[in-house]
This record gives sequence, structure tokens and C-alpha cells, in this order.
Amino acid sequence: MIVVGGGLGGLGAAFSLSRQGLAVRLLESAPAFGEVGAGIQLAPNCTRILDDYGLLDEARSLGVLPDAMVMRDAVDGAELTRLDLRHLEERYGYPYLVVHRSDLHGLLLRACGRAGVELVNDARVTSYENTGGGARVTLASGAAHEAGMVIAADGLHSAARGLFVDDRPVSSAYVAYRGTVPAEQPRVRNTDLGEVVVYVGPHCHFVHYGLRGGEMLNQVAVFESPKALAGQDDWGTPDELDAAFAGTCDAVREGLPFMWRGKWWRMFDRNPISRWVHGRIALLGDSAHPPLQYIAQGAVMAVEDGWVLGEHVGLHRAGDGTVDWTAALAAYEAVRAEHCRRVQTTSRAWGELWHLDGLAREQRNALLRARDTYDYSFTDWLYGPTALTPDQEPDMFTPVPLDSAAVGGAALAGGAA
Amino acid sequence: MIVVGGGLGGLGAAFSLSRQGLAVRLLESAPAFGEVGAGIQLAPNCTRILDDYGLLDEARSLGVLPDAMVMRDAVDGAELTRLDLRHLEERYGYPYLVVHRSDLHGLLLRACGRAGVELVNDARVTSYENTGGGARVTLASGAAHEAGMVIAADGLHSAARGLFVDDRPVSSAYVAYRGTVPAEQPRVRNTDLGEVVVYVGPHCHFVHYGLRGGEMLNQVAVFESPKALAGQDDWGTPDELDAAFAGTCDAVREGLPFMWRGKWWRMFDRNPISRWVHGRIALLGDSAHPPLQYIAQGAVMAVEDGWVLGEHVGLHRAGDGTVDWTAALAAYEAVRAEHCRRVQTTSRAWGELWHLDGLAREQRNALLRARDTYDYSFTDWLYGPTALTPDQEPDMFTPVPLDSAAVGGAALAGGAA
Repeated sequence: MIVVGGGLGGLGAAFSLSRQGLAVRLLESAPAFGEVGAGIQLAPNCTRILDDYGLLDEARSLGVLPDAMVMRDAVDGAELTRLDLRHLEERYGYPYLVVHRSDLHGLLLRACGRAGVELVNDARVTSYENTGGGARVTLASGAAHEAGMVIAADGLHSAARGLFVDDRPVSSAYVAYRGTVPAEQPRVRNTDLGEVVVYVGPHCHFVHYGLRGGEMLNQVAVFESPKALAGQDDWGTPDELDAAFAGTCDAVREGLPFMWRGKWWRMFDRNPISRWVHGRIALLGDSAHPPLQYIAQGAVMAVEDGWVLGEHVGLHRAGDGTVDWTAALAAYEAVRAEHCRRVQTTSRAWGELWHLDGLAREQRNALLRARDTYDYSFTDWLYGPTALTPDQEPDMFTPVPLDSAAVGGAALAGGAA
Repeated sequence: MIVVGGGLGGLGAAFSLSRQGLAVRLLESAPAFGEVGAGIQLAPNCTRILDDYGLLDEARSLGVLPDAMVMRDAVDGAELTRLDLRHLEERYGYPYLVVHRSDLHGLLLRACGRAGVELVNDARVTSYENTGGGARVTLASGAAHEAGMVIAADGLHSAARGLFVDDRPVSSAYVAYRGTVPAEQPRVRNTDLGEVVVYVGPHCHFVHYGLRGGEMLNQVAVFESPKALAGQDDWGTPDELDAAFAGTCDAVREGLPFMWRGKWWRMFDRNPISRWVHGRIALLGDSAHPPLQYIAQGAVMAVEDGWVLGEHVGLHRAGDGTVDWTAALAAYEAVRAEHCRRVQTTSRAWGELWHLDGLAREQRNALLRARDTYDYSFTDWLYGPTALTPDQEPDMFTPVPLDSAAVGGAALAGGAA
């Protein structure tokens, strides 16, 4: 079979399907495999899968396990709420890990190599079509590849998505700057590198966390571009960055000089779609469900997609190795489309909440301060086991063992009769 | 197509599939349609579906909307925790309704009649087999019925389940007595009929709630049978009932004289199974996933099964009306098997929690007392929208509108970046 796209989603899917005994060819448009960007957060719903792949120890060695995620108000710097990431790891059974995107990409690429995935570069797929018993992709070069099944993990600007819907990426008018603060800077010494900190402010937010053994600080600064709102093309420029954060607290503003000012990432998502499978062509990752980044689930969803697909391929494979693709793909679509739709819409809603101003900001802050640190009602659906194959996952929703019930009110709740 | 079994699950499935334009024949073994039992609790994940079916108003008129579900200790009678069912309705968008099982059954039966379902009595199916393009069932009479698809909603003692697994019902050694207290009894006047009350005690529990406009009290008494534990066949007899509740508080013991002493229900479930689809034969309801009753989801799951199947039939139906059964059934199984497995294992775990004795009971009580009334972390996965077709359900996990945010800490939680 063929996987189109050598990003995190495509590599994860190729590895997962190889594990099921399938011969996989991966087509990547770029002349070499690689990944741009800086840090990436891997919630337990991703590290659970890395563990199943036998890759978690390596991922741990490349990343950092922060102690806490702390949300602060960007204007006055005050703490609003936090997640205890050590306790969260106990709850979900797997850690919350932060790594460089390039390190995760390299890890998956090496795993694909070991698994025998055929990795092909300089192969930009421009069109997809179903054949009788499979599907065919055509490259920009004019060459074609055919297989019994094609996974289109071709990203936000997917060429395959046009088979399903005539849509375009949706601009949020927000733009992200990234940067790292080197170890020798006083800012690094003065920061708790065990915390992932999110400063939420009016029309902006700022994130930092430690990377690579904790000796550097990864930073992300995100804001709404007035030029984007005004319909101008050259939006998100560094002058807008400075203006957007002018009203924030010292702890935020002192991080701005470390942002890379030569490159910025305009933030787009797409509206959810419910069908990802067309004959023997299926979308996966950002081609199916590109989200805004507010709950850090874009790459995680792509990794989940590949794992779920692999599991259902395993369930719908006959003794002779033949896969019932109709069944496996229908199961994949049924399990994943609704979940990813919720991630997309929830991400948008969190963005709105983070960026409130005025009285609404005050109300939000009061609500967040009232939240119990150990209330997991907003993470269970996301970080808990992915709905897929039975008999594999712990049931976190059953009562905790009574001798570990030190956590308080969140541990138990009333049932029915 | 054919649905085998005229219980709540079979009727629900027949109605759902009729709505999708399919011609449905329903085969029921009994000479007339009916339902035994007393009250049944319909959580929002069921009333949501009744609403989608256009049947919720009728169900409301037949049932009661209690104000609260209260858990109390059966020994000392003290309150342990509660659900505010009015607020719960706001959270999930649909009410928590209690009705007579027979009223719900009648409602679904009438809906099937109006939808044109062919209802056949005296048709006891004894065997199932796949044919080339569909499936065939054979009756005890020797007659056979064939269709493109057969749904086996044939209950705890399903004949179809043997196609999937060689298992038997698992005895919990618990037995239930039911009864109703008539309106003229002082007990009814002295009870808050707006509450569903669960008294949890050592090796026993007791439930009561108002039914039919609140003018009668429905009661359920459940206990572990010493004779069952000793391996005796005649277990669960009324003498065991009296002994089991001897140590409970007055409020419980005063209800015992109203239990029907001539009939009792031994409580069985089965171990979860992951495959429910075999060619063109699919399990549904108790044939697939009979649970213990502790979280009141047995009939609710069966109704959900039918709805989910109908939705996926709709998604995998071609323009000419042909259903891609391979895809629809794979999607149904992928969505439902994992959810129902969790309900089954969670039900068992709740039963253990309810029936604790000694120090473990004290620890449980302390935990339950510490729970916030508005902590929904243990009901969201159950009462929230069923994972199935996209773009239909509200996203309860997104932040609440700030002007309705009076609920406190449970309303919001930290995200990621």
C-alpha cells in the first residue's frame, strides 16, 4: 500500500501498517525527510501509542517530562489554574512529554526504516483516483504509483481532500512566533523549566517550556493580527508582534527578544468533515482534520489516526493476510471522524476563551481559579484511551482503588441503580 | 431485513432501520409483545435518542423527571453524594427520565407499527446462518426467514451469540426483588418522590423512586445470596431477602414489606466480547453486551446500538438505496463494542464499590462525601453524545458560555498550548 506524505502522520501510519504485516511505500514530496518547527507537546493519548509501538523509551530520552502545566493571566501574571502532570501521568497511565518536533520525526523515520517501509523522496503527488481494486496516485513528474490502498497524509493543503469537499483553510487571523532562549541567559535560570506555562491574554497568548534535558527554554508567542482583520495581505509581521504584547506582564515581555523574528506561522484550520474514505483512498492527519493548536492535538491526532487504522486493519484481516479494506476503513472513519471533529471545534473554543478581554476576561479568570487541580473532566475525553479495539485499555472511569484515593472529590461519583 | 427479538433493543433497532427506509421484519418468540419488570431509568444518552426519534414528548408524558439522584449509606441512612438532575439536564441537553419498562416498550412498539415494521409473533429463532448475499434464520417450527441482513437482538440467552463465542452468562450471586408502594401508603407521603435514592450497603443495596406522575414509589432491593455463594441451586429466596437487609436503617427496612416476594431476578452478565458482526449477522443489545445493572445502562445501550446502526446505514447507503453492509456493520462494531465493554466492566466495578463492608465502606463513604455535586467526570463518557456521526451533537466539553458559568470549578479546566 501507499502512504502519501512523510510528516508525523504519514510516518506514524506507515509504521503502524507495517506492523500489521503490510508492505508500505511512503511518498514524500521534499528531497529529504525532515520537520520544521520547535517543541511539540505529546499528551498521554500519544505517549500511550508510542509505548505500544515500543518507542516510548526512546521518546523519553529525547524529551522532557514537565512537572506541571500552569495557566497564567498574561496581563497581571497571576496563576489561574494548573495541571499536575505527575498525577496526570498516574491517572492516564502514560506521561505528558515535550520534545522537539524534529526529534519525534526522526524517531518515527528510523522506526519506519527498521520496519521496512519503502521511503521515497522527491515524489509530489498531485492527483488521486480509484481504480477497480485499489487506487492510483500521479506525481508532478507524471509518474504513477498504484496500490490496493492509498493513505493521503498530505497535510493542510492536501490534494486528496478535494475528493471529499471543496473547501479552503480557514484563517484564524492569529499568527505564531517561535523561539528558544539559550541556557546561558538569566531568563533560563530564573524560570522553572519543569513547568509548561501558558499566559493567556487579550487577543494574545504566550507559552514557554523547557526542552532537551531542560537546559533551554522553548517559547511560542501568538496574537491576533490587526492587519489580517483589516484584510491586508502582509499580516503577522514583527511590528504587530511587539504591539500585541505591549500590555502584557514583564515575564511575558522579557521573552519577546528571543523570538525568531524572521519567520512566523499564520494559523489556519479547516471546518470538520465527516467522510474521509473514498473507495480505496483515505485521508489521515491534517488532510482530514487540521485544527488550531490550542489544545496541542494536531500531531497527536495524526499519530492516533495511524494507530487506529492499523488496529482495524488487524481486526479485518483474513487468515491469508487479505485485508477487508471496506470494513477496516469504515471502522477507522467511524471511530476517528467524530473524535477529531470535537478536537477541532474544541480547539477553536479554547482559543476564544484564552483571548478574552475586559469583563469576560475577569469572569474567565474567576472560573479558572475555582477549578480544582485534580478535576479531569475536561481532559478525560482527550487524554483517555482512544475508542478502538476492545480489551486493551485500562478503565480509568471505574473507581480508583481505595488505598490510592488520596486525590479527593474527583475520584468517585454517584452512579445509578 | 430481519430483527430477531421484540424487546427494547429489537424494537429500537427496527424503528431506527425503518427510518432509514429499510423494510424490516421483526420476529418475536412470545405469542404477544410485552415487557416484564418495573421501572427503568433513562439517562440523557437515551432521551437524546428518543428526541431524535420524535418520541421524547410521549416518553415524558409517560414518565417522571426526578429532581435528584441521591446516594445514601444503607446502614446509617446518611447522604453520601448526589446528582442534581435538573442541572444534569442542562449539561447534557436532555433529561434524566424514569418510566415503567412496559410504557417504554409500548411506546417503541407503537412507533414500529407506525413506521411499517412487520411484527411477527410466535417466531422463536433457534439458528442463524450466513447465505451468499445475506443471512437466514430458522425457527423452532422449522420455518425459515431470509434477508440481506439479520440483527440478533435475542437477549441474554442469545442463540446467535454462539456464532462468536462459546460462553455462558456469569452469575453475580446477587438477586433483585422489585415492588411498588401504592399511593395511599404513609411511606409514599413521607418520601420525596422527586428523588431517585440508592442506599448502598454491605452486600446489598436498595433503590426507590417515584413513578407515573409521582403517585407511587418504585422499589428495588438487591443482595448477595449466601446460598448462591455456597453453590446451592435454590438461591435468592425471600428468607435470604429478609436476612440480607436485617442490618440496614429504618428507611430501607420499612420498604421491604412492599417487595413482591413471589418473583426475583437473579443477576447475570457476560464477559465483554469484541466482535459482534459475522457476515450479515450482527448482535445488538443484551445478546452482545449484557451488563450488571449498577449504572442503569442495559436497555439504554440497546437503544443506542439501534440508533448508531441506523446512522451508519444512512452513511453507507448508495443513491439507489443499496446499503454497503460491510462498511455499515464495521462502523457499528467499531463504535459500539469498546463503549459497551466499558459499560460492562464499569458496572461490575460499581457493584463492588456499593457493596463494601467494614473499613473499605468507611473509606468509600469519605470519598463520596468529598465529591462535588457538579463534578461530572464520571458521567461525561456515559451521558455525553454517543460517538457516531459527526456534525450533530453539541460539544459539552467546550467551555460553557460565560454568562451561565455559575456552576463553579467543574465548568472549565486548563488546556495546553
